[in-house]
Amino acid sequence: MTYCLAMRLSDGLVFLSDTRTNAGVDNVSSYRKLFIFQPADDRTIVIQSAGNLATTQQVLDRIQRDLDAPEPPSGESLATVATLAEVALYVGRLNVEVAESHRPALERSGAAGSSTFLVGGRVGDGPPDALLVYPEGNYIRASDERPFLQIGETKYGKFLLEMATRANLPMITAAKVALSSMVSTAHANLSVGPPYDLALFHPDRDVIEHVRIEADSPYLARLQEVWLRHLGAALEDLPMVEPGDIRRV
Amino acid sequence: MTYCLAMRLSDGLVFLSDTRTNAGVDNVSSYRKLFIFQPADDRTIVIQSAGNLATTQQVLDRIQRDLDAPEPPSGESLATVATLAEVALYVGRLNVEVAESHRPALERSGAAGSSTFLVGGRVGDGPPDALLVYPEGNYIRASDERPFLQIGETKYGKFLLEMATRANLPMITAAKVALSSMVSTAHANLSVGPPYDLALFHPDRDVIEHVRIEADSPYLARLQEVWLRHLGAALEDLPMVEPGDIRRV
Repeated sequence: MTYCLAMRLSDGLVFLSDTRTNAGVDNVSSYRKLFIFQPADDRTIVIQSAGNLATTQQVLDRIQRDLDAPEPPSGESLATVATLAEVALYVGRLNVEVAESHRPALERSGAAGSSTFLVGGRVGDGPPDALLVYPEGNYIRASDERPFLQIGETKYGKFLLEMATRANLPMITAAKVALSSMVSTAHANLSVGPPYDLALFHPDRDVIEHVRIEADSPYLARLQEVWLRHLGAALEDLPMVEPGDIRRV
Repeated sequence: MTYCLAMRLSDGLVFLSDTRTNAGVDNVSSYRKLFIFQPADDRTIVIQSAGNLATTQQVLDRIQRDLDAPEPPSGESLATVATLAEVALYVGRLNVEVAESHRPALERSGAAGSSTFLVGGRVGDGPPDALLVYPEGNYIRASDERPFLQIGETKYGKFLLEMATRANLPMITAAKVALSSMVSTAHANLSVGPPYDLALFHPDRDVIEHVRIEADSPYLARLQEVWLRHLGAALEDLPMVEPGDIRRV
């Protein structure tokens, strides 16, 4: 499995992906799932992937092939599309084509070839945004009220995002929320794990920062320590039900 | 969907269930999923259910029928079994029989009839315990390290349980953790919701308390307020990555 998330804040975009992949529990590996493209001066595009690893790698190979060729074999490329929505449709189309090409063989072996993507960044004069591309090739934006998107193992870390993520959250605070959501997911599910790829897009400066947080990073230990401390304080403070709160059954 | 959990602490047992049921999103209702039986002086048995509502209701009807008849039609009953493990096997057997009796018709309509149960309490001289009964009729105990069991929509609230639940946690604190796990699940997933049934088994006094917490209970508002306050404090305190923590990519 995988856990990737993207946030659209007032002051920028936050992208975070784990790197763990597994086929069963005895074939665990580490692959990058967050990719940054700047194929022209007017665009920064982040692509995150979840699902069948072979499909996502072949999609990324086709994206690169379209960028490298003088005439993109797919008819378009990340350098030629005009909006972020067109990026989503382009990635969705490649995804459907790749999955479809392997479907008969995969079905015979009982495997699924589908993948899901997050695409984000800025293209041309469009606003910074993040979109989720379904295996069927269509896409949605993050909502205005809860401006985040998740793919992969999304349930464990959703509560924290729901509680904390608002568009007016400073990007740096949002990145901490994202990392906390990631760590809580990795804690609960072995199929999600470090290193983590974190990318921050600053639209005002048109700059994207990309850092990798390794499993033995002192940061992860500090993050865990702060959460455990506040969790302990919350447990101390939690009220117990009183007679007026309940109905005895 | 549903969310039920059971905890086995040093000083007693905690059981918590929501009451929401749904078939699709346009058929939402409220049904009890936590049931307490005291069919003899030497036993207190709690049964919690998740899965197909028709199956769980028919299983509970058969449990009651076995208790009411002078000779249990199933050959045994909650009053005759000798251990909590036998309770689990008995409930598992009824569950398999009921699901199997409807399987052909359910398969024709593409529905699943399987259900999962938690059983807990104390039978005879056995220790207080909690067990999870699979749809196939077999069962597992809670682990010694993380002494809780969950059925239904388990992922959203697991992190909190993993972080906080130890056997030496006082039962009252554990109940607050359970309620927090429940509230965070209901917050993230519409198919889980109040009222909540909370039962506390005190083995020293051989007493079980059962209370119901309604949707408009002031307790739920106080619980949310405490969590939001500590979440805010944790966000303030969370460290940001520093150059030594990361590798720039």
